[in-house]
Amino acid sequence: MDESKLRELLERVQEGKTTASEAVEQLRVLPFEDLGFAKLDHHRALRSGSPEVVYAPGKSVEQLKAIAKRLADTSGSLLITRLERQAYNQLLYELPNLEYDEVARAAFIEAPGTLSHPGVLVLAGGTADLPVAEEAVVTSRVMGSPPQRIYDVGVAGLHRLLDHLEELQQANVVVVVAGMEGALPSVVAGLIAAPVIAVPTSIGYGASFGGIAPLLTMLNSCANGVSVVNIDNGFGAGYIAASINRLAARPD
Amino acid sequence: MDESKLRELLERVQEGKTTASEAVEQLRVLPFEDLGFAKLDHHRALRSGSPEVVYAPGKSVEQLKAIAKRLADTSGSLLITRLERQAYNQLLYELPNLEYDEVARAAFIEAPGTLSHPGVLVLAGGTADLPVAEEAVVTSRVMGSPPQRIYDVGVAGLHRLLDHLEELQQANVVVVVAGMEGALPSVVAGLIAAPVIAVPTSIGYGASFGGIAPLLTMLNSCANGVSVVNIDNGFGAGYIAASINRLAARPD
Amino acid sequence: MDESKLRELLERVQEGKTTASEAVEQLRVLPFEDLGFAKLDHHRALRSGSPEVVYAPGKSVEQLKAIAKRLADTSGSLLITRLERQAYNQLLYELPNLEYDEVARAAFIEAPGTLSHPGVLVLAGGTADLPVAEEAVVTSRVMGSPPQRIYDVGVAGLHRLLDHLEELQQANVVVVVAGMEGALPSVVAGLIAAPVIAVPTSIGYGASFGGIAPLLTMLNSCANGVSVVNIDNGFGAGYIAASINRLAARPD
Amino acid sequence: MDESKLRELLERVQEGKTTASEAVEQLRVLPFEDLGFAKLDHHRALRSGSPEVVYAPGKSVEQLKAIAKRLADTSGSLLITRLERQAYNQLLYELPNLEYDEVARAAFIEAPGTLSHPGVLVLAGGTADLPVAEEAVVTSRVMGSPPQRIYDVGVAGLHRLLDHLEELQQANVVVVVAGMEGALPSVVAGLIAAPVIAVPTSIGYGASFGGIAPLLTMLNSCANGVSVVNIDNGFGAGYIAASINRLAARPD
Amino acid sequence: MDESKLRELLERVQEGKTTASEAVEQLRVLPFEDLGFAKLDHHRALRSGSPEVVYAPGKSVEQLKAIAKRLADTSGSLLITRLERQAYNQLLYELPNLEYDEVARAAFIEAPGTLSHPGVLVLAGGTADLPVAEEAVVTSRVMGSPPQRIYDVGVAGLHRLLDHLEELQQANVVVVVAGMEGALPSVVAGLIAAPVIAVPTSIGYGASFGGIAPLLTMLNSCANGVSVVNIDNGFGAGYIAASINRLAARPD
Amino acid sequence: MDESKLRELLERVQEGKTTASEAVEQLRVLPFEDLGFAKLDHHRALRSGSPEVVYAPGKSVEQLKAIAKRLADTSGSLLITRLERQAYNQLLYELPNLEYDEVARAAFIEAPGTLSHPGVLVLAGGTADLPVAEEAVVTSRVMGSPPQRIYDVGVAGLHRLLDHLEELQQANVVVVVAGMEGALPSVVAGLIAAPVIAVPTSIGYGASFGGIAPLLTMLNSCANGVSVVNIDNGFGAGYIAASINRLAARPD
Amino acid sequence: MDESKLRELLERVQEGKTTASEAVEQLRVLPFEDLGFAKLDHHRALRSGSPEVVYAPGKSVEQLKAIAKRLADTSGSLLITRLERQAYNQLLYELPNLEYDEVARAAFIEAPGTLSHPGVLVLAGGTADLPVAEEAVVTSRVMGSPPQRIYDVGVAGLHRLLDHLEELQQANVVVVVAGMEGALPSVVAGLIAAPVIAVPTSIGYGASFGGIAPLLTMLNSCANGVSVVNIDNGFGAGYIAASINRLAARPD
Amino acid sequence: MDESKLRELLERVQEGKTTASEAVEQLRVLPFEDLGFAKLDHHRALRSGSPEVVYAPGKSVEQLKAIAKRLADTSGSLLITRLERQAYNQLLYELPNLEYDEVARAAFIEAPGTLSHPGVLVLAGGTADLPVAEEAVVTSRVMGSPPQRIYDVGVAGLHRLLDHLEELQQANVVVVVAGMEGALPSVVAGLIAAPVIAVPTSIGYGASFGGIAPLLTMLNSCANGVSVVNIDNGFGAGYIAASINRLAARPD
Repeated sequence: MDESKLRELLERVQEGKTTASEAVEQLRVLPFEDLGFAKLDHHRALRSGSPEVVYAPGKSVEQLKAIAKRLADTSGSLLITRLERQAYNQLLYELPNLEYDEVARAAFIEAPGTLSHPGVLVLAGGTADLPVAEEAVVTSRVMGSPPQRIYDVGVAGLHRLLDHLEELQQANVVVVVAGMEGALPSVVAGLIAAPVIAVPTSIGYGASFGGIAPLLTMLNSCANGVSVVNIDNGFGAGYIAASINRLAARPD
Repeated sequence: MDESKLRELLERVQEGKTTASEAVEQLRVLPFEDLGFAKLDHHRALRSGSPEVVYAPGKSVEQLKAIAKRLADTSGSLLITRLERQAYNQLLYELPNLEYDEVARAAFIEAPGTLSHPGVLVLAGGTADLPVAEEAVVTSRVMGSPPQRIYDVGVAGLHRLLDHLEELQQANVVVVVAGMEGALPSVVAGLIAAPVIAVPTSIGYGASFGGIAPLLTMLNSCANGVSVVNIDNGFGAGYIAASINRLAARPD
Repeated sequence: MDESKLRELLERVQEGKTTASEAVEQLRVLPFEDLGFAKLDHHRALRSGSPEVVYAPGKSVEQLKAIAKRLADTSGSLLITRLERQAYNQLLYELPNLEYDEVARAAFIEAPGTLSHPGVLVLAGGTADLPVAEEAVVTSRVMGSPPQRIYDVGVAGLHRLLDHLEELQQANVVVVVAGMEGALPSVVAGLIAAPVIAVPTSIGYGASFGGIAPLLTMLNSCANGVSVVNIDNGFGAGYIAASINRLAARPD
Repeated sequence: MDESKLRELLERVQEGKTTASEAVEQLRVLPFEDLGFAKLDHHRALRSGSPEVVYAPGKSVEQLKAIAKRLADTSGSLLITRLERQAYNQLLYELPNLEYDEVARAAFIEAPGTLSHPGVLVLAGGTADLPVAEEAVVTSRVMGSPPQRIYDVGVAGLHRLLDHLEELQQANVVVVVAGMEGALPSVVAGLIAAPVIAVPTSIGYGASFGGIAPLLTMLNSCANGVSVVNIDNGFGAGYIAASINRLAARPD
Repeated sequence: MDESKLRELLERVQEGKTTASEAVEQLRVLPFEDLGFAKLDHHRALRSGSPEVVYAPGKSVEQLKAIAKRLADTSGSLLITRLERQAYNQLLYELPNLEYDEVARAAFIEAPGTLSHPGVLVLAGGTADLPVAEEAVVTSRVMGSPPQRIYDVGVAGLHRLLDHLEELQQANVVVVVAGMEGALPSVVAGLIAAPVIAVPTSIGYGASFGGIAPLLTMLNSCANGVSVVNIDNGFGAGYIAASINRLAARPD
Repeated sequence: MDESKLRELLERVQEGKTTASEAVEQLRVLPFEDLGFAKLDHHRALRSGSPEVVYAPGKSVEQLKAIAKRLADTSGSLLITRLERQAYNQLLYELPNLEYDEVARAAFIEAPGTLSHPGVLVLAGGTADLPVAEEAVVTSRVMGSPPQRIYDVGVAGLHRLLDHLEELQQANVVVVVAGMEGALPSVVAGLIAAPVIAVPTSIGYGASFGGIAPLLTMLNSCANGVSVVNIDNGFGAGYIAASINRLAARPD
Repeated sequence: MDESKLRELLERVQEGKTTASEAVEQLRVLPFEDLGFAKLDHHRALRSGSPEVVYAPGKSVEQLKAIAKRLADTSGSLLITRLERQAYNQLLYELPNLEYDEVARAAFIEAPGTLSHPGVLVLAGGTADLPVAEEAVVTSRVMGSPPQRIYDVGVAGLHRLLDHLEELQQANVVVVVAGMEGALPSVVAGLIAAPVIAVPTSIGYGASFGGIAPLLTMLNSCANGVSVVNIDNGFGAGYIAASINRLAARPD
Repeated sequence: MDESKLRELLERVQEGKTTASEAVEQLRVLPFEDLGFAKLDHHRALRSGSPEVVYAPGKSVEQLKAIAKRLADTSGSLLITRLERQAYNQLLYELPNLEYDEVARAAFIEAPGTLSHPGVLVLAGGTADLPVAEEAVVTSRVMGSPPQRIYDVGVAGLHRLLDHLEELQQANVVVVVAGMEGALPSVVAGLIAAPVIAVPTSIGYGASFGGIAPLLTMLNSCANGVSVVNIDNGFGAGYIAASINRLAARPD
């Protein structure tokens, strides 16, 4: 029951055409969703700043076109993750303001007038981790928190990491992307007070088991302040980082 | 917003004390649950025949007393699973009509006047599987489908199983409890047309891995009609079997 | 010993050419299968409504042709799962009434005159889960229970699910197909009284482990009434759903 | 090299007793830590609001006494996790203002004058999850963010969860503790915009595998905004929640 | 249908009271088991030399007494595995000729007059593996193939193993029991032509994972002729070894 | 030290050119291998009937040519497993009497005059398991025990299996190849007294985990007499079966 | 703060332009890295003999060119692992003295004048393990310890291994590369006193699980002196072997 | 054939009682072990400095007494690991010079006159890791390389680790013991040039999985020079460290 139908019913009560009792009966048997979820959706509107998100794998270009067009119409911002360049090229016809990040394999539309809040920092160890790190960067950027990047730091070369101590300690939230043994988030969390979002990557071989090794390392971190997202889930980490950074940025 | 409050609001509209527009506003900001979930709960009432269920492990006797008493007051039937005899003895003071099944380690109150529908059959291989099988039996019984039992049948002694071919083929639904290699459900499903609910047990040693071996066996069954519940989950199997049997029994 | 030989023996007894004692001796040493399994097969005939089923992977087109032709001759209905379109095209020469479902990757012949019983509902979360869901749909349909579909519902957007509460609560049995975290069956089972057949899919990445994550989620469901089939086993779920629905539908 | 020694060296340069070149040499070969880590520790002091934390298992009461006393002297607040009541009783002699939370099995001293910022919400499903949830509560509280609690909500009974929609949508950060299938964080994250810290618990049996099932569920969450900590790690979740909430609360 | 009933039917045919056709009809609908399994059981009798076997864990002393007594009456030999000494003492009242092997934790009755065939050899590495090795010894012995033992040989001390090359090469079948890395069966199989039955044990710690490490080692053996039984399954290995040795020993 | 050098040394002793003491010294410091391993190799010669075996994957055609030619020269029989047809064609130039089995993907030369002993039986469930089953057949055949085959039997269709009860019970050793749930060996072992060699295959999907499911099923078999080889290891099973059958066949 | 700046500051103190107190203040707030890590890098210079190492997978040829050129300029030696021949050919234009090892898939530049110390021995079982073994050989060679090789030895043919006992017992450190069951390191370590570096390979099939089987075997070795590196990590083993051999070789 | 028999044979040749040819024949058929393994044992004697080692778990005090006494008689040094204090007390009667280390749970006799070589360093993170670290210390000490200890350092508090940079960089070999996420070895190996022996411990909870998490972390170390031993295997690490340190110390 959308609002107009509800209003109509109440006007009929107001006009005496329907008794209060009859209206109660009608409201009671209304399909659940018609009453309650106006409220649900209303609250969802609070999520300003979050883009509509589409996970591309497993969807045909036709499906992607349809979904992306509908979302882009209703929302200011849009993010399509794990999208191949070739598919992007085809989407571009429909959505000419759709941008593409080659490394992150992500397409996006930033809502015009989105405020940019600094405070998110994205760290990554090796070049092979960059696609995941950049997915976090793009996601956080589309959500209004364009991150600072520190790449090519690792636990086996502490001096490169410590060179960035200042920036680390000034961030509101730090995303740490690491494959192989995945020890970087623990070291970082030991140096700072802000929350660390750890992203294990599937980079590695042998007993890395497609990212299980760094995932376990991160879950068992002896440093305080580390929480973990799925293997290779740069999007998830960027999303959380931006939603945390929003808390620090808001006027309150 | 319970019905009385809703009625009051509508009467105020009827009486012209509140305009339709004001009422729409008020309804829109009503706490979600006050409107919608009357319906949700109403539908839950459809679940007649299902007992209130309490999983005992991790709850103190005091907690169990409080929960059981509250549930027994609002519902005709009650089932407490994985309950030690000692705890049962203490619950008995509060709930004098609470019965106890030693093998299944389950306490229960059957709703008076529950109709009993035959059609559920529970099979088990070894004596060690009996607690799980009996948990299925008690659960199904409390739900109005007291099962027939066939125990001490296994794939390594086919003649004992085939002796019961007649009963197997007459059941509406068959619960098969098996540990070790867990092959019994496949063999049974190959002999009958009714759905088979397979319950792996943690009985076994070595590469049984606490029930993983029979769980995988059952999930990979080459026979049609086998679905699986958690390791040692006799309750779950009994619950599903009774809810399936109810379909066969209902007048409609 | 086929019937003709048995008849011959008995006629010799009748004619006095063989004594009863000699016949007992001969029957006792008869190969097992000759006597007993007539009965087995007879009982198998009870399974009317179930199609002959062929799992295509690992079989050459020639093998498929031979098998499918033989089965189609002896049985009214036929289902070939996981069949590529290209192989279907070749089978079509031999079996001109063989239909094909592109999404489910299944070919089938429905037995003429099969009664259709409503009551099966198939739910799926994402577009990527559709092949599995459609395999369940085709299977259940061929077995006489064409399902209703509800797609694009997920636990992260409850309002879309609750929009369908009515249909959910009217089904006899619900198949829920879900990948990633696989939480949908628990939420659905919490809303309805009918049995839920949960199908984990291999959709997802990282710690999804090819479907292990949703499989474990479903096996550990805290909601009553959920049983589980193998990862991506849409066929199995559809088969079970139809065999349960048959119980509700039968005149009895 | 502490500051006094550095000052002494520089004074000798000032007084002409040591040349600049000699001083450079001496500074170059100084043990690394004497120079650099003043800064490291200085930055650590930024972590005001974070208590000193001791993980009790594997430490004797004597060891705990020594560690706790030293930490309590240098820091305003102290938290000892997984501490048995009996050990607490003995620590009380040394640290008379040490408080104890029976359910969380945690002892703590709150720094006097700590400001309390609302905004953290802790959800848990079953009574068996309470020790983990309460560990999160105590941790967050000692860090200046005493959480609001919502217990006894689960995915199989959505109406109980939706009853708290208002509070959920007002929190800065939500800790969700869940065992068995661990689907609650996904459902919660689908309803709100704030970050969700998911804590899998080892509650369950069979294919729960000591918490692996809910851990995987949470890592694979299809809802945005969920990050995960180790199984049963209520402390970690509380720590992260408080450090996120601090961002929302700070004046800046 | 037992023999008397079958005879009765045939006599009625003989006497002309029943026609051959009627008898065929009656035989065709006879319960499966009544006809067929006389033959099944008859074939089982071929298994002379195999004892009746009872796996003790999970059975009460009362249950064990009942089962053992029944089996001992119908069979010449009996083997009860994983039996505690205390339970044995109680069984001794009922079965005074029941013997007990302390190390193997097995009780047994050897059929009088059983022929003893040499040819089975049991190897074990460490003292900790002896209970499993001795279970194999007792089992094979009760089945008429008392094994020769070679203990305290391991891959890290090849000379001790090679000291027994002669005996190794004369055996018909060799059981090799090994924990930790489980490499002994490969080395042994490389030295001999006879089949090797490998038994992984749960001896070890850390990454031994309760016997998974030696189990995988044995399954991946690069030496020809190695087959594997379950972790700690000394009984199974002894059973197979004896049944293989029987082939070598039989007059045929 | 080859024999000629040893002879020379002894002749020098005989001739008085070297004292016995000097010879003892010289023999004591001889490289280990020169003395001892003549014996090792001598014993290896006992393995008559076993072919030289080459595992083709990971070897270039050139490497295969070199190895195969050398082995074929020194040994009567040869077996190359997992060999692609294309590589076989190239080997054929060098080894014109090399035969090829398309299904087993194995090339072989049977030693002329090898005696053939019946007694090995190979069972397989589905067509997809045939490559593994045929690898067992070829191996056993090259070793002098050409097996009888029974294919297309499975636990979900017991009657097809029981049709072959006679043959099953007459075999000396039975190889059972099965994928998916892998229950067939247990059922077979329950029907016969001979040893069963179980071969899990990687056929299946989802929770089959590339053959882990049937592997665990077989290791946990509740039937006596089942030992297991690696997943898809048809060669290993055929090798063991033939070496067991040899025991039954030998004149002794 | 590099040395020149530090010197300048101290000179200003010396000249009375800055007081000691002011200098202390300035030093205390210097960025961490400016002071401390001169020392860190100085110590790194101790690592003479170790090449700069680049892991090629996941890097584009352009990236490899840039990295390799920079490293080759600053360091005498260079090692690029897992490099395809095609990429090597392109690097050759920039680095004309870059050599390539086809089997090891490694490119390298040896520092001119590197001393060569014998003492490292590399063992491997099958031809399929050679790429990993050769990676260890190349790595150790570039680090100044060109290894001796013993290939084609395995636990199933002890005599071939024992033929090399002399060389085994003279090595300073032995790298043992093995797939399948991975038992070779245990046997080797039982024969020698030197440390053994074990490298599991992903060679094998079925329950080898991509190298997990030999990895577990090696971790559980019952022989003393075995430590393990990641699956297929020939580089790591060669690196460690050379760094151990360096200890034996150094004049000290 | 022991030396006396060999001598006797040669003397008979010398005396002309046996021809050279006859002696060759006799030597050729001598049992393998009689000739060859004198050499094996002789080489074993090279292992001076290594103690005889007994792993206590699973052995009775009586067995331990017998083994320890025999070993102590034939060897200068002895090490018994994982020995309970109570058992030690009983062994003390037989071996009065047996010492005991309470933390390491190890008893030992140091060979008199063993030279002590510095150069081994043992690091550990938390107090809970000390038993494993001390087992490494005791083992290395008994082997002549008493280690220096650095405890209470971890990756979450880098400054404590970097305080010991000097000692770290001077060690010949470093044993790093770590539980939870196990990242310490990577950080240490990044700071030094010497080999690092990493020991994962079973300390931790939840997704630590009894030490699997740190084990995987260590195997996947991105730092060069890390090899790994079994979970909790302090003995193994100490043994390897001492055998490496011996190389650095030997005069050679």
